[in-house]
Amino acid sequence: MIVGMGRWEPNARGRLEQAALELYVERGYEQTTVAEIAERAGLTERTFFRHFADKREVLFAGAGTLQDLLVTAVAGAPDAVAPLEAVAAALEAAGALLQERREYSRRRQSVIDANPALQERELIKLAALASALAGALRRRGVTGPAASLTAEAGIAVFKIAFERWIGGTSQPGLPQLIRESLDELKAVTAGR
Amino acid sequence: MIVGMGRWEPNARGRLEQAALELYVERGYEQTTVAEIAERAGLTERTFFRHFADKREVLFAGAGTLQDLLVTAVAGAPDAVAPLEAVAAALEAAGALLQERREYSRRRQSVIDANPALQERELIKLAALASALAGALRRRGVTGPAASLTAEAGIAVFKIAFERWIGGTSQPGLPQLIRESLDELKAVTAGR
Repeated sequence: MIVGMGRWEPNARGRLEQAALELYVERGYEQTTVAEIAERAGLTERTFFRHFADKREVLFAGAGTLQDLLVTAVAGAPDAVAPLEAVAAALEAAGALLQERREYSRRRQSVIDANPALQERELIKLAALASALAGALRRRGVTGPAASLTAEAGIAVFKIAFERWIGGTSQPGLPQLIRESLDELKAVTAGR
Repeated sequence: MIVGMGRWEPNARGRLEQAALELYVERGYEQTTVAEIAERAGLTERTFFRHFADKREVLFAGAGTLQDLLVTAVAGAPDAVAPLEAVAAALEAAGALLQERREYSRRRQSVIDANPALQERELIKLAALASALAGALRRRGVTGPAASLTAEAGIAVFKIAFERWIGGTSQPGLPQLIRESLDELKAVTAGR
């Protein structure tokens, strides 16, 4: 059903995501039911549950994709590339994909910021992401605490670039903000 | 009741902390009740609730103290000290205090690691800590994303030093591991 749909007709998954976010913004996350999401998307509850485990996962389904993308990019970076550069390049690639979805990302964040349980979930996903990145670096031969530190530094850079990105309007794109945050981190650690 | 107790007789708060942790390790966090903690400490439930809001807060009561200590240390650092150095010095001071409690910290961590809800709580506390540190840096005149990046970098350094510290036996003390992690972060961001 997903494959082969035209450009202007979002697939079921995309329609459910869109409908869920609309409802979370309009009525609040807590007040929205899966039945309402399915109805708004013009689909059945059964279709909803084919795509998402529950209404919370609609907001976090992208985290798995993001993680796979980052891990693959870090694994695929040339051997000569320094660990933090490999992470930064992976984050920029992810940023370029997210770039198209600023309005969606902004509304999603406003829903998360309004709900402590969703904030906790977001922190868990970020911690898992840092962990996966550290694992990818270790498989590249980065040893000891350097792998975890590089991964945590990368996540910090991404988080801050992301906040600036959704907070702004006409500012630079997400990949550029990631690069700027990385440079800022380098300046900060160099004591400048 | 707390004030004036002798060195070898822990105060009520300390006894409750100790009793709670013993029970969490022996029986599991979920299975332990406040009544059991009070009984093990030789105190009443009423005394428990004078010190802690619930059984979860016994594990996180130290977070507020840690945050106050870090914020005060950052605020009090001489003007000439670079932001990351101010944070590092604050973390080392906190590390020197924690240093005395390695066995306690290790057991506490094993309880947290075994319970996803406690892990979420820990991440929330760390995020709040990063936020408080960023605020303290802004009050020192650190502007823009540099404040958040420095704070996040500091928390990453602390987290990784802490993990090494509780994971080790005869290794260096926590303040030294914090300094080593910071140097490692500097090396990583300098591309070494």
